[in-house]
This record gives sequence, structure tokens and C-alpha cells, in this order.
Amino acid sequence: MADYTLGEIARIVGGEVIGDSGMKIHGIAGIREAVEGQITFLANSKYESYLSITRASAIIAAENGNFNGSVIRVSNPYLAFLKVVTLFSRSPMERYPRGIHPAAVISETASIGREVSIGAYCVIGDNVVVSDRVTMLPLVCVDEGANIGDDCLIYPHVEIRERCEIGPRVIIHSGAVIGSDGFGYAREGCLHQKIPQIGIVKLEEDVEIGANCTIDRATTGVTLIGKGSKIDNLVQIAHNVVIGENSVIAAQAGISGSTELGDNVVIAGQAGLVGHIRIGEGARVGAQGGVTKSVPPGVSVSGYPAREHSLSRKIYAASTRLPDLLKDFRDLQNRVKALEKGLGSGPTAEDD
Amino acid sequence: MADYTLGEIARIVGGEVIGDSGMKIHGIAGIREAVEGQITFLANSKYESYLSITRASAIIAAENGNFNGSVIRVSNPYLAFLKVVTLFSRSPMERYPRGIHPAAVISETASIGREVSIGAYCVIGDNVVVSDRVTMLPLVCVDEGANIGDDCLIYPHVEIRERCEIGPRVIIHSGAVIGSDGFGYAREGCLHQKIPQIGIVKLEEDVEIGANCTIDRATTGVTLIGKGSKIDNLVQIAHNVVIGENSVIAAQAGISGSTELGDNVVIAGQAGLVGHIRIGEGARVGAQGGVTKSVPPGVSVSGYPAREHSLSRKIYAASTRLPDLLKDFRDLQNRVKALEKGLGSGPTAEDD
Amino acid sequence: MADYTLGEIARIVGGEVIGDSGMKIHGIAGIREAVEGQITFLANSKYESYLSITRASAIIAAENGNFNGSVIRVSNPYLAFLKVVTLFSRSPMERYPRGIHPAAVISETASIGREVSIGAYCVIGDNVVVSDRVTMLPLVCVDEGANIGDDCLIYPHVEIRERCEIGPRVIIHSGAVIGSDGFGYAREGCLHQKIPQIGIVKLEEDVEIGANCTIDRATTGVTLIGKGSKIDNLVQIAHNVVIGENSVIAAQAGISGSTELGDNVVIAGQAGLVGHIRIGEGARVGAQGGVTKSVPPGVSVSGYPAREHSLSRKIYAASTRLPDLLKDFRDLQNRVKALEKGLGSGPTAEDD
Repeated sequence: MADYTLGEIARIVGGEVIGDSGMKIHGIAGIREAVEGQITFLANSKYESYLSITRASAIIAAENGNFNGSVIRVSNPYLAFLKVVTLFSRSPMERYPRGIHPAAVISETASIGREVSIGAYCVIGDNVVVSDRVTMLPLVCVDEGANIGDDCLIYPHVEIRERCEIGPRVIIHSGAVIGSDGFGYAREGCLHQKIPQIGIVKLEEDVEIGANCTIDRATTGVTLIGKGSKIDNLVQIAHNVVIGENSVIAAQAGISGSTELGDNVVIAGQAGLVGHIRIGEGARVGAQGGVTKSVPPGVSVSGYPAREHSLSRKIYAASTRLPDLLKDFRDLQNRVKALEKGLGSGPTAEDD
Repeated sequence: MADYTLGEIARIVGGEVIGDSGMKIHGIAGIREAVEGQITFLANSKYESYLSITRASAIIAAENGNFNGSVIRVSNPYLAFLKVVTLFSRSPMERYPRGIHPAAVISETASIGREVSIGAYCVIGDNVVVSDRVTMLPLVCVDEGANIGDDCLIYPHVEIRERCEIGPRVIIHSGAVIGSDGFGYAREGCLHQKIPQIGIVKLEEDVEIGANCTIDRATTGVTLIGKGSKIDNLVQIAHNVVIGENSVIAAQAGISGSTELGDNVVIAGQAGLVGHIRIGEGARVGAQGGVTKSVPPGVSVSGYPAREHSLSRKIYAASTRLPDLLKDFRDLQNRVKALEKGLGSGPTAEDD
Repeated sequence: MADYTLGEIARIVGGEVIGDSGMKIHGIAGIREAVEGQITFLANSKYESYLSITRASAIIAAENGNFNGSVIRVSNPYLAFLKVVTLFSRSPMERYPRGIHPAAVISETASIGREVSIGAYCVIGDNVVVSDRVTMLPLVCVDEGANIGDDCLIYPHVEIRERCEIGPRVIIHSGAVIGSDGFGYAREGCLHQKIPQIGIVKLEEDVEIGANCTIDRATTGVTLIGKGSKIDNLVQIAHNVVIGENSVIAAQAGISGSTELGDNVVIAGQAGLVGHIRIGEGARVGAQGGVTKSVPPGVSVSGYPAREHSLSRKIYAASTRLPDLLKDFRDLQNRVKALEKGLGSGPTAEDD
């Protein structure tokens, strides 16, 4: 992790230095956490009061405000912050020392690439492939025949079951389980006979899997997460699900068996999808949405059962007035009855 | 794992061989994954195009189609496939070598049965009983006094807390926690004083618990999962819940404290049940259903709050028309007002 | 764990002994599990039939019933039970032997306090602080620079990521992940560029975190759980969430990024909160509630989208009658049309 001068950082974010362009900066942190030698940022006016007390040596902001040190002025401080935080963030190669911890159990038939980092108490089974520059933190278990691509980052307590395939640059967070058995039984009377799940899970390149997710292996074939897709914590992906590229699934969502998602799909938190449906490219499912049938490309749905988002919103707005509507309806019934009486027609049976 | 001839397989699935009955088959796989010497199946017409390119030596199908090799013709290829996949699947006894890994920490007071497999970095506490033919994969932790029945299969990263009882042939998937403390506090003003949870969890024979499930121990007594019940991933079972036999609970469902489920109950994904209710034998709860009161035997409920499924469906169908109903109702109010004026009655206060 | 006489216990719970006040009691258990020398309780009449067969030597109850042994009579047996179970429960200091297991990997730069218990296969990183009397069960991983306060109890398979701060007397159940990366990406066309998450998680004193929870570290700054707050199993807390003191979050709930909860908030099971809102002090969210905007202090909300609980209840009650309302409305429309015809006005376009 190199140092940068304030001038270099300003050039990278397209900003203007008010102060000492030659100042060396060696890190970035939030306005409350930053220390001397670090740069911080102000993007949200509710943190303005920290300007006078932060220990940061420099700040990225739209204006100087009460800050005494050097400032990089930009129009969008948050975007500039994202660039700088990436500038200062160390790759797994830098953060974790290379080498294999002596307290790791690695099968003689496993193939281990160059410049890997394998932590204490990892267990690597027969015929596993761990490719170059993989970082595997402590207490990870990789079963027989699984394949981990170049530059993967696997956090502690992850389980990768037999024969699963993990593409290059995949990140898997702590406690995630890749390749657990799909939930499949054949009924014989009241009994449920387990159907062996002989397929695998394949995560393509640049996928990220959140903490404590569960991705089940296919009954036969492949449960597939397409390249660049990002999955938040505690998400359930059932057997034979296929997810396209660059899709995003928020925390605690669940996708039932054999459902397919296209590219660029967004599933919000706690949403649930039944099995055997198709979510078209670019479609979106709202938080807690319960999707019971296929969604065409580009369509946004929400609610339970999920309907087009604009209809769902109208229904929910209308439902607020439902209790009053019932009262008003009874009143109108009575007024119509009175009119009918006035016209000589008696009350109808339906009103009784 | 023995080989079978095509004729033997045909007899087992009740099918007819078109081709070489004496051909030796040594495995089964999906139509895209199968290799020479394996059998595959075609149950879904969308995979028909793979018939001409699969490397499988034989196929289970309703018709030969474009396949050049030998065929076992059956009327229901999927059912036949299930029989054959079970035929070729190896038991845990076959898949995992017997013996205790030297890097496992086992208390001197633990009792270990015959023909067990205990993986690297397992930790087995005082007075634990591990019965015959148990397969315990790496990194499993079993606390003091727990009892694991014959032929259990425990995947990596499982935690079994003190004194819990696991019946014969139970399967527990990675990351599941059996016997964590129930969520119980006594309020003293604003503070929550923890109530020690001194009960246990008991899983009866042939139960299967999904990955990253949490099954809490009872406050006193037993949280019980009855024999043959199957629980999918990420399910929460709270303290003192009792589940009958052969029930099925899909992923991400949650059962609150002291609720009881009868036999043969089905709880769909992401459903939630409040505490202290009873779900009768054979009842069913739909996906995302929120069950707030007891459900009689045999009844299906869905929606939030959960109502009989047929009523729920009517309500959801009707709600689609609610926005229009509100408009139509205002129109009707105006027409009645006009009628009332025509009759000499003035507008009523309720319309203002 | 000392013994108590029945007379001592009666004094502690404010009850009256019917029988042998000098009898030594050395434990407490449920009425079905209790053995000789233990005390049990009867708070629920459905367990009355066990009175004649329990092996307990004494019982806490409102009346003697069919029990032959000594009784402590109290008006509220459940409250008395809670006091006695706490009396007999052993602290982690008593339950787990002190010392560091030889099969634990501890960095030379870690600081380990007095009277700690560190289990087999724990991994403790550089510059970690483990304070006095911490109990860390097997297979726990604590990354670089994290700080564990006095008297914490950390169950197996827990992950505590780098630099997170755990206050005194915190309890973390098995499989929980503290400090996983927040789910943050910057979009570049269809691609999602990971935003490094450089903040931390801070759990204040007396917090309890359930099994398999995921608490994400802040983008910058702190994801904070205030003192005395209790979190059930499988809960998701996103980056930069702030939770006040003595709040309670039930199982499978999820809180999205940057949302703030005040003190004494109650979130029921499977509820979900969108990001960037504020839940006021003492507010409550019902089970499966979907909260889409801020909730004022003291207000209870439920349903999706969450509304004040009393309104939600009215809407759900009214919705039951919606299918009939649609039928009755069409009937009323026809009657009004008939009236209009009688008055000489023709049918209106809206009725067609």
C-alpha cells in the first residue's frame, strides 16, 4: 500500500487542492475514525460538526467549512471517496501473507497453485484444485474434487462441497455453504425418500456470496450463478437455479428450485420466488415480494402475490381506505333501500 | 458401488431395453454431464437437443428420439431416474473412509462406536456418545453429553450443543446449529435478564436438517423434531417447538416458541408461525404465510395473516380490483345523490 | 454450583414449604426430565398428569395436587422457576475449564487476559485483545485487531472479523458472523464494482447475538448494537445500522443499511426494514412487517407496507369481506341503474 500526495489524489478524483499539495497521505477513514496522515470526506451535512474535531490531515469535500487542514474540493465528495477508498484498499494478496499454515490438512492429491494463502485448520480434500493467488482464511473446508479459480478470497468457516466449481476472483464470505444437498424427496406414502443430489454448484468469475448463504447443488447438472452476480447475506439458492450475469440478490431472499434469473436482475431483501419460473433480464422484485409466476424482462414486481409494482402500489394505497369503504358502502345500501321504498320497491333479499 | 447391466437396470425400473442388454453401466448423470459408461435420462422435452450430443452410453426415456445408443424405455423416465440414481449412490460408509483423523480432539470420556469416520479438526466433548457407523466430516463440534445415533451423517461446521440427542440415520448439513439457547428473557424495567435454557434438542430417526439451520434448545424439556421430518436450509426452530413425524419445512421458514406441528405437516418457504399455536396433522402453510393462530388438521392456509387458502386466493384476486372499486364507488355515491335530489331529499352529511 | 435447602429456595422465591425444609436440592429441571435431588415446577395445568410420576424430590407449584414429595407453594410458579433456574445455572467461568487449548493458533502479538478459556482449533490473529475471563469455545476465528471485552462468551464456529469491538459480557452464539463486508457496489454500466468496507462492527456491553446471525461492518465508521440489546437467530444487520439500548430483534428479521433504531425497540420475527429510516424509541414492528418509512417513537406498526398496527388490523379484517363486497357492489350498481331507469335517466357509461 503506497502513499500518495494530496496532489496525486486530487488528480485521480478530478478535484482542486486548497492547501498543501505535497502532503503525504497514507490512508482513508470515516470523519470520526480518521487519524493524522489520513484523508477523510464530508458527503453528508449531518457530519459537518465533525469538521472542527476530526484528526484527519486532509478532507475531500465540496467546501472547506470549519476544517483547518488541507482540502480537496470536488463536486461529488462521495464518488471521490469511493475512488480513494479503492486506491488505498489492499488486495487480499497484500492483506494476507502467502503460504500454507502448518496446521492445515491438505490431501496429497490436491493441486495447490502458486502464491496461495491457506489458513490454519483448513481442510482440503482429494483432487481439489486451489489455483494461483487464492486466499483461503482459517477453518475453510473444501471437499473432494472441488475447483477454486485464480485470485479467489474465501473467508473463515466456508464450506465448499465436492466437485463444485468456483471461478476466478470469486469472494465467499464467512459461513456460506456452497453445494449442500438440494431439498429433494420422493414420497412413498407418508415417507420421504431422499433423492441423491449428484449435480454441482458453479460460481462464475467475479461472483460474491454473502455470509451464511446456502447454495444447493443440483439434483443432476448445475446450480449456476453467472459472472459478476452479487449475493448478500443469508440468501437461499435452491437446486438447479440458474442466475444470469451481473444480477444482485439482497439479504435473506430465497430462490426455489429450477427457477431461472436473466442478466441484470435485482431481487430485494427477503423476497421469495417459487420454483420453475423465469425472471426476465433486467426485471426487479421488491423487498418481501412473493413471486408466484414468471416475470417478463424489464418488469418490476412487488407485494404478495407479486404484481407489477405500479398496480401493487395502487392496491396498497386503496387498501388503506378499505375499512371506511365498508362503512360507506353500508350507508349507500341503506340510502338505495330508502330510494327503492320511496319508489314503491321493497327491500331486496340481499340486504338482509 | 457395483456395476449393473442395462438388462438389470431395466428390470429394476420396469422398462424395456432397446439395444444391448448386456452393456455394463457404472454410473448415472445428467444428460449434459454424463460420460461413457454412464446412463442418463430424458424427462423434459427441453433437453431433447442434447440426445444427439450426450456422451452417455445409454438413456432412460419414453422414446429413442435422436439417441444413437441403447435405451431403456419407460413411461415415466423421471421416476425411473430416481430409482437408478439411488441404485448408484454410495452410502456415507462407502464415500468416506472409516477411522478417526489424528487432528481431531476427542475427550477421554467420550464413547466412540465401531466403524465411525471422524474428520480433521472435529472437537468431541466429555461424555459424548458417537454411535456405530457415524460419519462426521471435518470441523464438527459436539459438546458435552450429546448423543449421536447409529449411521448419522454430519457435514462440516455443524455445532451440536451439550446434551442434545440425535437419532439414528439423521443427516445434518453444514453450518447447522443444534441446541443454541432459546431466546428467553425476563424483563426488569427496560433490562432483559437472560433466562438460562436448560432443556435440549432431540432429533428423532431419519430427520434431515438443512444447511445453516438453527434449532434452539428448550427452556426446560425438549425441542423435538419427529422421525422422518425434513427441514430445508436456513430454517429457524425456536425453543420448545414440537414437530411431528414426516413433516416438511421449506427454506427460511421460522417456527416460534412452543408451537406444535402434527404429523405430515408441510410448511412452505419463508412462512412464519407465531408461538404457542398448534398446526394439525396434514395441514399446509403456503409460502411466506404468516400464521397467527392454530390451524386444524388437514387445512391449507396462506397469506398474511394466514387464512384458509381458498379464501386467501379470493381476497388476493379481489384486491386487484380494489383501486377500480374505489373509483366506481364514488361514481355510484354521486348517482345516488342525484337520485336523492330528484326525489327531493338533500345530500347527506356522509358525502361531504 | 452450590446446593440449597428447600427452605433457602422458598425464602428466595417468597414461597411456603409444605414438607421437608431441610431437604438438600442440587438442581432444577422440567417435570419430565427432573431426577432425584432436583426441584421442578408446575406452571401449566397441561403437565399436571406428570405430578404423580416425576422423579423430582420437590416441586414449585400453586398447589400440592397429586405430588407426593415436598412442595414450595407460590402464587406464580413460573416466575419462581425463573429465579431458581438462574440460581442453579452455572456461569461460563464454572462451566468451561480455564486455559488455552494446545491446539489453538494464537498470534504472538495478541494480548490474552487472565482466566480465559480458549478452545481447540481457535485462531486468534495479530494484535487481537482477548480480555479477562473470556470464554471462547472451539473453532472460533478472531481476525487481526479485534477486541473482545471481559467476560464474553463466544460459542463454536463464530467469526469476528478484523478490528471489530466486542464489549464486556457479550454472548455470541454459534455460526454468527460479526463484521462481514457490507453489501456495497458502485455501478459502472452493468458491472458492480465492490466498494471496500473499511468500517467496523461494535457490540456494546451485555449484547447477545443469536446463532448464524450476520452483522456487516460499516462502509466507514461503525455498525453499532447498543448495550443490552438482544438479537435472535438468523438476523441480518446491514452496514452502518445503529441500534439503541435494550432493543430486541426476533429471528430472521433484517435491517437494511444505515437504518437507526432507538432504545427499547422491538422487531418481531421475519420483519424487514428498508435502509436509511429511523425507528423511534419504544416503537414496535410486528412479525413479517415490511417497514418502508420511519416510525415515530412509541408507535406499533405491522403488515406490508407497515402501517400503524390498529389500522393494519382494520385493513386485514376488512379485506376478509372484500370478495363479498365486490358482489354486493355489482348488485347495488344494478339497483341504482333500475332506480335511474324508473326516474327516466338512462344507464351511465361506467356500468357497461
